[in-house]
Amino acid sequence: MKSCTVYAPGTVANLVCGFDILGLCLSSPTDKMEVKLLNERKIIVKSADGYPLPEDPALNTAGAPLLEIIKDINENIGFEVLIYKNIKPGSGVGSSAASAAGAVVAANHLLGNRFSKEQQIQYAMFGEKVASGVKHADNVAPCIYGGITLIRSINPLDIIPLPAPDLYVTVVHPQIEVRTADARAILKHQIELKNAIKQWGNIAGLVAGILKNDVELIGRSLEDHIIEPIRSQLIPGFAELKQNCLSAGALGGGISGSGPSIFMLSKTEETAIKVEAEMQKIYTNLQVDYHTYISKINKQGCTIE
Amino acid sequence: MKSCTVYAPGTVANLVCGFDILGLCLSSPTDKMEVKLLNERKIIVKSADGYPLPEDPALNTAGAPLLEIIKDINENIGFEVLIYKNIKPGSGVGSSAASAAGAVVAANHLLGNRFSKEQQIQYAMFGEKVASGVKHADNVAPCIYGGITLIRSINPLDIIPLPAPDLYVTVVHPQIEVRTADARAILKHQIELKNAIKQWGNIAGLVAGILKNDVELIGRSLEDHIIEPIRSQLIPGFAELKQNCLSAGALGGGISGSGPSIFMLSKTEETAIKVEAEMQKIYTNLQVDYHTYISKINKQGCTIE
Repeated sequence: MKSCTVYAPGTVANLVCGFDILGLCLSSPTDKMEVKLLNERKIIVKSADGYPLPEDPALNTAGAPLLEIIKDINENIGFEVLIYKNIKPGSGVGSSAASAAGAVVAANHLLGNRFSKEQQIQYAMFGEKVASGVKHADNVAPCIYGGITLIRSINPLDIIPLPAPDLYVTVVHPQIEVRTADARAILKHQIELKNAIKQWGNIAGLVAGILKNDVELIGRSLEDHIIEPIRSQLIPGFAELKQNCLSAGALGGGISGSGPSIFMLSKTEETAIKVEAEMQKIYTNLQVDYHTYISKINKQGCTIE
Repeated sequence: MKSCTVYAPGTVANLVCGFDILGLCLSSPTDKMEVKLLNERKIIVKSADGYPLPEDPALNTAGAPLLEIIKDINENIGFEVLIYKNIKPGSGVGSSAASAAGAVVAANHLLGNRFSKEQQIQYAMFGEKVASGVKHADNVAPCIYGGITLIRSINPLDIIPLPAPDLYVTVVHPQIEVRTADARAILKHQIELKNAIKQWGNIAGLVAGILKNDVELIGRSLEDHIIEPIRSQLIPGFAELKQNCLSAGALGGGISGSGPSIFMLSKTEETAIKVEAEMQKIYTNLQVDYHTYISKINKQGCTIE
């Protein structure tokens, strides 16, 4: 039976001022998945490392997109997926997106690349729906395209891949729980127009900076007057960590996804390492366990071995 | 005495989803201004065509920036300005900005180009303050830079010039009065977060479209869920005009500045002319006098003859 191994990377959604519309692909952490084509209409998803998964594939993030695929293609096939989970669920760096996108990219490979990237994103969003109740693309899109992706619109889906600047990303994942549902619930439905104007000035600046490869402009544009002031309250140490990372030379950064992970962009690996040290100091002092990751922006996205 | 002639073009501020942050420079209409260097600390502004101007230069849009310039440079000089006004005040295509920017660009030329473009914008904003009570740059910036400009931030001023796509702009100015103060007063201070997210998706798409020269993406991104639904109520015929222009092939468009002018972008001159005909039909039917203009995006901005 045909099979393949796919590497599905972590992703940073929201990108400070790009709430719900921008995502960035990391080089690490990365999930590994072994996917087999079956000759019966069945989806099996197993954990390789003991992480408990729902037995019903419709309820797990890798299974749900695959069910949609076999529903659509109406052939006598199925998939068995074995997941080596390196991206911690609930970390805010796209764990569910990696499972969903990895499963779809592997399935597409095993089916002879019959789906466009946009179609693959459409399928992978079924996994996000299982994970968070909402079909969103700001993790699965960069996970599949690599680089930085703009989701101009979800309905209809309009994804604009942007070039990946040569920047280093430092991520810290403090081992505290921030539920996506809670992070969404505390947001206000109404916001100030004057803050919204600042936000769209910054998002426009960020996109211009990415496309012009102007890293100083990227840095100046990494401001969020709307979401961060609210959500950062859920993350102990956030304000001090951000300030210390900027003092250490980071261009800017903020909450990754809905947290609790925090990411910072830097121009050089040397700065990214200094930034990591600042992050470590904060969570060591707070006696909170953590993981840190340093990676370049991943230009490939999910890759088949 | 040294003197020069400057041509100061009209501009379209707000650019649909780019409320308060994006502006575009037109090739017509254009004001003409003759500016003389005087050897005394005095500002004189005169109308060449009978348009009544405040005698006190501090109260007119060309005079106020020049007063700031002579205050700053502390030399025994002044300026006399003669304005040939082709851009109707109150039209929504940057009449006050043209006077302010034209005066500053001419003064800078007569002083041996001692100011940067950002400094010239800073001076010209004093003219906007006289006109509308608010220092804003979304007309003076494209008037001075040409092309399309992003005003990421006003304080501190952060202007990002963007390339000008090869598009045609059709503008209609219906001869009705929409006061900038009224157009601002009817806006809501609070907006829905979900609409703001759509808006920043569109502004990001628009900036990406401009920088990637992707005119279809520019067209798809020209949506405004926040300002247009409110302000368009002040402009009779707006909804039908917009629909008819899109049916005639326009990429998109909306209210120019705070109105009453409406602009539409088209890929070809042929389409821009069809769009003009649709605009003419609407205001002929409504028995409202109007002017129309067709121009390419002006890449130069203010020019010295």
